[in-house]
Amino acid sequence: MTQQRRTVTVIGTGTIGLGWITLFLGYGMQVRVNSRRPEAPEIVRRGIELSAGHLPDGTGDPETFDSLLSFEPDLERAVADAHVIVENVPEDLELKRALFARIGKAAPAEALILSSTSTFTPDDLGTLMADPSRLVVGHPFNPPHVVPLVEIVAGEATDRAAVAEAVAFYREAGRTPVVLRRPITAFAANRLQSALLRESVHLIREGVVTVQELDEIVTESIGLRWATIGPFLAFHLGGGEGGLRQWLSTLGAGLEQGWELLGRPPMDEETIATLIAQADDAYGDRTYSALVRARDTRQTAVLRALEAAAGQEQAA
Amino acid sequence: MTQQRRTVTVIGTGTIGLGWITLFLGYGMQVRVNSRRPEAPEIVRRGIELSAGHLPDGTGDPETFDSLLSFEPDLERAVADAHVIVENVPEDLELKRALFARIGKAAPAEALILSSTSTFTPDDLGTLMADPSRLVVGHPFNPPHVVPLVEIVAGEATDRAAVAEAVAFYREAGRTPVVLRRPITAFAANRLQSALLRESVHLIREGVVTVQELDEIVTESIGLRWATIGPFLAFHLGGGEGGLRQWLSTLGAGLEQGWELLGRPPMDEETIATLIAQADDAYGDRTYSALVRARDTRQTAVLRALEAAAGQEQAA
Repeated sequence: MTQQRRTVTVIGTGTIGLGWITLFLGYGMQVRVNSRRPEAPEIVRRGIELSAGHLPDGTGDPETFDSLLSFEPDLERAVADAHVIVENVPEDLELKRALFARIGKAAPAEALILSSTSTFTPDDLGTLMADPSRLVVGHPFNPPHVVPLVEIVAGEATDRAAVAEAVAFYREAGRTPVVLRRPITAFAANRLQSALLRESVHLIREGVVTVQELDEIVTESIGLRWATIGPFLAFHLGGGEGGLRQWLSTLGAGLEQGWELLGRPPMDEETIATLIAQADDAYGDRTYSALVRARDTRQTAVLRALEAAAGQEQAA
Repeated sequence: MTQQRRTVTVIGTGTIGLGWITLFLGYGMQVRVNSRRPEAPEIVRRGIELSAGHLPDGTGDPETFDSLLSFEPDLERAVADAHVIVENVPEDLELKRALFARIGKAAPAEALILSSTSTFTPDDLGTLMADPSRLVVGHPFNPPHVVPLVEIVAGEATDRAAVAEAVAFYREAGRTPVVLRRPITAFAANRLQSALLRESVHLIREGVVTVQELDEIVTESIGLRWATIGPFLAFHLGGGEGGLRQWLSTLGAGLEQGWELLGRPPMDEETIATLIAQADDAYGDRTYSALVRARDTRQTAVLRALEAAAGQEQAA
C-alpha cells in the first residue's frame, strides 16, 4: 500500500473498545484512543496484553504497537484529523446522540463515523447531527478481535458511499462485514441469540436440563454445526438430494406446529435465582480471566481450523 | 479389553443408520445390519466409503470393517443374539411401535434397545411391548459419526440401569451423551434449533437479510461462539467479572421485552417459495455430496481443533 497510514480514533475503553484497539493495531493502523479515564493508558496496555495472543494470523508484532498508539482525552482534538472514528460508549441513547453531535462538528467532513452499538440505528443516533450521512453502525461481537462478524446497518440518512467505506474498513481489519438490507431493532444475530436464549430458559424452568447441561448440548451439536454451516444450509442438507425444497415439503406444516410448542418463560425472580445458582455451580470454580482465555483460545483454534479446511476445499 | 466383542444390530440404512454403522465399526464393534432392501450391502458399502474419512482419530482401519459387518434381512434373526439394538426407521409412530413389539419378543431379555427417534419418548414407543424397561431413546445429530451429542431420554417405564448402559454404550462409541432430566416433545437441541429457525424465517420475510446472508451471520458470530462455549457461559462472560448475575441484573427486564419483539412468521406458500428460491441462489451451484463433504471436513477440523485446545488448557 502506498497509502498513508490511516488514523482511527477509538472512543471508549470498555471490552469492545479494547478489542478494537488491539485489532486495529494488529493491522498496522494508527490508533488514537479517546477516553476521559486518567488510567486509560494502563487499561489499554493490559487489554492488549490479554488479547494480542488471539489476533488473526499475519497481524503485526505487538512490540510495534506502542509506536502506533496515542491517547487524547479531549474528544474534539481526538477526532479533528481522524480518517475513521469508532464509538464504543455505553448503550445510552442520549449519551450517544450528544457525542455524535460533537463529533459531527469537530471531525473532518470526509471522516467515516462508526458506532459499535448493538441497539440503535444510525437514524436513532444522528438526530442531533447537522449531517448524519457519514454515520454507519458496525455492530461487532465480543471479543471483536476474535469473532469475525460485523453487522453493518445504515439509516434513511446514510450515504451509500459511507456504507461501502465501512465495509472496506472492516475488511481491512480482517472482519466479515454483512450489510443488513434494512434496519431492525437488535439487528439480526442478537435476535437469533435472543430466540435461542428464550427456549433455553424455558428448558431450565421446566427442569429438562441444567444450565451446564444446556451449554454442553449446544456446543456438542448445533454449535458445532452452526460454526461450519449456517442454519439454512444445515436444513438444506437435512433434505438430502432434494435439498431445502424436500425438507420444507416434509416438515413445513410441522415446523409451525413446533413453533407453537416453544416456551414463553417469564424472567421473574425465581427464574433469575435458578439461573444464577446453576451458573455458580457450573462456572463458579473458574475465574473470569481463565474462562475468557479458554474461550478465546478455543475460538481462535476453531477459526484457524476452518481456514485450513477452506483451503483444502479450494484445493480439492 | 478382555470382553468379547459386542454385537450391535443396526436397523435401517438411511442417513442416520449409515452413520451409526460406520461409527460402530470404527470402534471395533460387530455390526449386524437389518434392512429389507436387497441392495443394503451396496448402500452400506458406499455409505462407509463416504463417511470413513471423517471418523474420530484413533478409530479402526476401514480395511477391517468387512470382517466386523454382517447383514440379516429378517428382523427376528437380526436381534436374536444382539447385545445392543439401534433402531433408525422413519419417524412413524405406528411403524416404530410395531417394530419394538417384535424386537421385545425376539431379542434377549438383557439386550439394550435404543431408538434414534427425534420425536417420540420411550413411553410413546413401547406401548406394545410386554416389557419396555430396556428401551431408551438415544437421539443423535446428523451426521452421527461426526456430531458428538446424543440426547438420552428415558420414560416412566424405563429401567435406570438401562439408561446407565445407554450412556456407557454411546461413550464407548466416542459420543457425548447427555441425559435429559425429563422427557419433552422434540427434546432439547431441536427445540433450540426450532426457536432459531423461527426468527431466521422472520428475518428473511422482513427482508432484513437473505438465506445466504443469514447463514453467514450465524457461522461468523454465534455459531463460532456456541461451538466453543454454550449460550449461558457466553452470557456469563458478557457480564464481565460479575458474571451471569451482573448480566441478568443489567438486562433482565430487557430480555423479556426483547422476546416480545421476536417474529411469529407463518410458514405459508409465499414464505416457502422465498426460502426455496433463495436457497437455490445460495447453494444451487454445488451438489449434495460436495456440500456434505465440505460440512463433514469442516466439522471434523473443528472437533480436532477443540480437542487440541482442551489439551492446551489442561496443560496450562
